[in-house]
Amino acid sequence: MSEADFIARLRSIATDPAARGLADDAAVLGDLVLTHDMIVEGVHFLPDERPQDVAWKLVAVNLSDLAAKGAAPLGVLVGYSLTGDEHWDAAFVRGLGEVLRRYEVPLLGGDTVGIPAGAPRTFGLTAIGKAPATGAPARSGVRPGDQIWVTGTIGDAGLGLAMRLGQVDPNETCLDAYRRPQPQLAFGQAIANPVHAMMDVSDGLLIDAQRMAEASGCELGIMLETIPLSAALLAVRPDVLDTRLAAATAGDDYQLLFTADSGAASDIRAIAAALNVAATPIGHAGVGDGIMLTHRAQRIAPPERLGFMH
Amino acid sequence: MSEADFIARLRSIATDPAARGLADDAAVLGDLVLTHDMIVEGVHFLPDERPQDVAWKLVAVNLSDLAAKGAAPLGVLVGYSLTGDEHWDAAFVRGLGEVLRRYEVPLLGGDTVGIPAGAPRTFGLTAIGKAPATGAPARSGVRPGDQIWVTGTIGDAGLGLAMRLGQVDPNETCLDAYRRPQPQLAFGQAIANPVHAMMDVSDGLLIDAQRMAEASGCELGIMLETIPLSAALLAVRPDVLDTRLAAATAGDDYQLLFTADSGAASDIRAIAAALNVAATPIGHAGVGDGIMLTHRAQRIAPPERLGFMH
Repeated sequence: MSEADFIARLRSIATDPAARGLADDAAVLGDLVLTHDMIVEGVHFLPDERPQDVAWKLVAVNLSDLAAKGAAPLGVLVGYSLTGDEHWDAAFVRGLGEVLRRYEVPLLGGDTVGIPAGAPRTFGLTAIGKAPATGAPARSGVRPGDQIWVTGTIGDAGLGLAMRLGQVDPNETCLDAYRRPQPQLAFGQAIANPVHAMMDVSDGLLIDAQRMAEASGCELGIMLETIPLSAALLAVRPDVLDTRLAAATAGDDYQLLFTADSGAASDIRAIAAALNVAATPIGHAGVGDGIMLTHRAQRIAPPERLGFMH
Repeated sequence: MSEADFIARLRSIATDPAARGLADDAAVLGDLVLTHDMIVEGVHFLPDERPQDVAWKLVAVNLSDLAAKGAAPLGVLVGYSLTGDEHWDAAFVRGLGEVLRRYEVPLLGGDTVGIPAGAPRTFGLTAIGKAPATGAPARSGVRPGDQIWVTGTIGDAGLGLAMRLGQVDPNETCLDAYRRPQPQLAFGQAIANPVHAMMDVSDGLLIDAQRMAEASGCELGIMLETIPLSAALLAVRPDVLDTRLAAATAGDDYQLLFTADSGAASDIRAIAAALNVAATPIGHAGVGDGIMLTHRAQRIAPPERLGFMH
């Protein structure tokens, strides 16, 4: 059965409102925000990835879910498959310590299991956070007329993966974006109040925007030419439509996608400036459904593959 | 690296008091109790186990950790490896629904991942609970002079596993104990106040008692003849020392091991009677360290293997 079919079955038993219909980045139980992600060798990370970077990413992707709900992290629990490789295990713990110190998140506990020889390394992480006093924004809160925003730059991590696979000449900015995503925790907390809807971009800007549109019953209109691309990406790729579509469908960005009343724009810019985070308006929400793409005022058909499906 | 070595390294970064030095059944963060356990096919469950029973056990073992801290469950997050086997996945969801309804615990969220063909099924579960108002008992609270107690009967699940492996003629009581452990949630919550120390018996009564002794800096003296054995077990095994040592080192019991002032005995018996749970005194704590075993007033050397090491 596909992941979507399985989640549909799970949804039939996840009837508590705290589960948010299994359709948000995290569960919201009273003032707690809870998320759990697993990563599997060969599926979510390359077998030759550095263990420090695997640990970093395992934590960062979960903290990014907390960021998307405006939550302040309270701690994490780790589920670890012992690999039988002493150097690997030791380097993983070093990376885990590094990312937890960077975001000042305590390691609370977890579990360690042996795995059969040859089995892929499988790790899980649960992150617990405190919801903002004004409530955790949902994916489903978009209102027609909202301005759509995204933090940081898009597509660097996807290009970093292509570099890791030897398809593109490497540069450190894109490799770092792929290996060491930076969850937008401070910005997510600061912005939680003005926003109407927020989620993190993990599978690709377009597929995640599509999910936000579906959850909200709105259409998200995105102007592809406004999607923020880094100098490092534009040093390797020309600024043409194909580059922008590739960046917007690559995934692994761990930036925040959010919408707010257009009257909130100056507040949002002030918060972004104070935290030294780029926040860029990329379109508007309207009545309708799905995503509507334009590039320099030309309507563009959405690509068949909107992002990473898993 | 061994699990113990790995946990020792993790401990060096798990310095927050909420982690309880990674030496308790669960983390205790303010009034929250948090636990995460993973299970791996071929390691923690047999490849031909019924998926409903795998789901039951995944939830039950985590709820048992909450029970050991006297916590009331608030919800769970599940990490699921899609198996590619539609019947298996569907039966797992049914079993998950069944155990969550039985203990009235909401499914809050989680993650679903694809795994490479042939990889062992690996599942994780995080359970969140509310600590008792008087605080969550630790493993480390034993005081010399305490009476040592255990709930239910010991060794049934271990015998059930032997039955599953075709080593012993099957009976339903022991098979059920193996397949569908019953976490002592109500008793754990009711008893949290009088007890000095509490943990659940997962790897074997003796190894878990040894861990409690180490955490507390006390000696736990256990009278093997008092360990409660079920009629179903005694129908298959004679009541001799070897049977009692086998039961006390088999694991998978998910009963509660706890200590309290001997003056609390009548309160404990009253709580047990009210909840229809067996609670049996099995010895006393003293000054010293480790476990001290006797059988009908004869000193017995602890067996080399005290339980399931992993």
